[in-house]
Amino acid sequence: MDKLEKNIGYKFNNRSYLMEALTHSSFANEQKDRHVTARSNERMEFLGDAVVSIISAKFLFEKFPDMDEGELSKLRSSLVCTGSLSEFARRIHLGDYLFLGRGEINTGGADRDSILENAFEALTAAIYLDGGMGEARKFVLSFLSKAVEGHNINFKDYKTQLQEVIQENPGENVYYVITGTNGPDHNKVFEAEVRLNHNVIGKGTGKSKKSAEQAAAKEALRLMGLQ
Amino acid sequence: MDKLEKNIGYKFNNRSYLMEALTHSSFANEQKDRHVTARSNERMEFLGDAVVSIISAKFLFEKFPDMDEGELSKLRSSLVCTGSLSEFARRIHLGDYLFLGRGEINTGGADRDSILENAFEALTAAIYLDGGMGEARKFVLSFLSKAVEGHNINFKDYKTQLQEVIQENPGENVYYVITGTNGPDHNKVFEAEVRLNHNVIGKGTGKSKKSAEQAAAKEALRLMGLQ
Repeated sequence: MDKLEKNIGYKFNNRSYLMEALTHSSFANEQKDRHVTARSNERMEFLGDAVVSIISAKFLFEKFPDMDEGELSKLRSSLVCTGSLSEFARRIHLGDYLFLGRGEINTGGADRDSILENAFEALTAAIYLDGGMGEARKFVLSFLSKAVEGHNINFKDYKTQLQEVIQENPGENVYYVITGTNGPDHNKVFEAEVRLNHNVIGKGTGKSKKSAEQAAAKEALRLMGLQ
Repeated sequence: MDKLEKNIGYKFNNRSYLMEALTHSSFANEQKDRHVTARSNERMEFLGDAVVSIISAKFLFEKFPDMDEGELSKLRSSLVCTGSLSEFARRIHLGDYLFLGRGEINTGGADRDSILENAFEALTAAIYLDGGMGEARKFVLSFLSKAVEGHNINFKDYKTQLQEVIQENPGENVYYVITGTNGPDHNKVFEAEVRLNHNVIGKGTGKSKKSAEQAAAKEALRLMGLQ
């Protein structure tokens, strides 16, 4: 357990949360047959799913202030899908610490995606219950913030994408102009244009100059059929 | 806005969160046609969905320590479904404060379930962003804790249910016996039996005597084909 705590960078005050999170239902059922009570991690998984959900939603909501809800949703799904969560679990060797029933041990349950995903969610819930949302957030973001980098270009950086497209034709010159601002000080909205050789090829708005430019680049890509 | 803040029992530090939460996409689109920027509440709805999710999950997880994840899931779904959330929205007259497009106004959008549900989620996100998880929890639980009472008997109180069944046959006597305890002090598990005229009709375990008895009553109901 000390080693697992080291892997995850969190030390439990109450290890019974940790034990419950590590107990697969196959183990709990086996124990029940022997009239010993061990609680499976399924309730924790229920809670952990919601904890992972809010942490990832808040993280993406803040990191990508100009992404619409459809993109946010898609990005979150891909970041916290079974494949990703089981991969996070493998990185901390979570499978080695699970209590599994005999049948699951024999059939490689310790490395099965679904079991690892559920255990990762349960472990997140255990940290949340033991240490609060701040600790749970630290734990989940230690995986998510790296994972999101891999998705970055597809989802965010429209200016870079546009630049790359334009560069295919040497001599073309792309630049951005802030054309206006709107709204009261505490809720200002900027308007930007992206121009190619003085022709406007996209317009966008955002809560910062940078994000207005991103929106303009996105529109340009869309008009070019690239978004 | 003052009146709405009174209805919801929360005063915003930054009302731009509130404004965004109240802005339906139909209004935002209409403004766009006039080259005015108004941000719709769809991103907030994405975040608010996750906020409502974790608040309801944690609430049920703690309120029903012996409910399994299937029951928790089912109960949560029924508590935070479209019908419920739109009803919560109606209670605070949220529809009266929404910014809707002309078309939606004319077709009764201010009282449409889907619009109200989304606005309720967006408003929850706005409170969360403005005041933190504690304020969002207070807001959501002010609806949920009452709502869950209506579901209580179906989901929780197996002892009462069993009592009602037994009472149909006068002279029958049902009682509970704690038959054992297991585990270390910080994670004790109690075992209970429910007996009918000295015959064991159900057994159960739980983290408290009361919950062990509930589990025993549940098993008895199940064996009788009533659960």
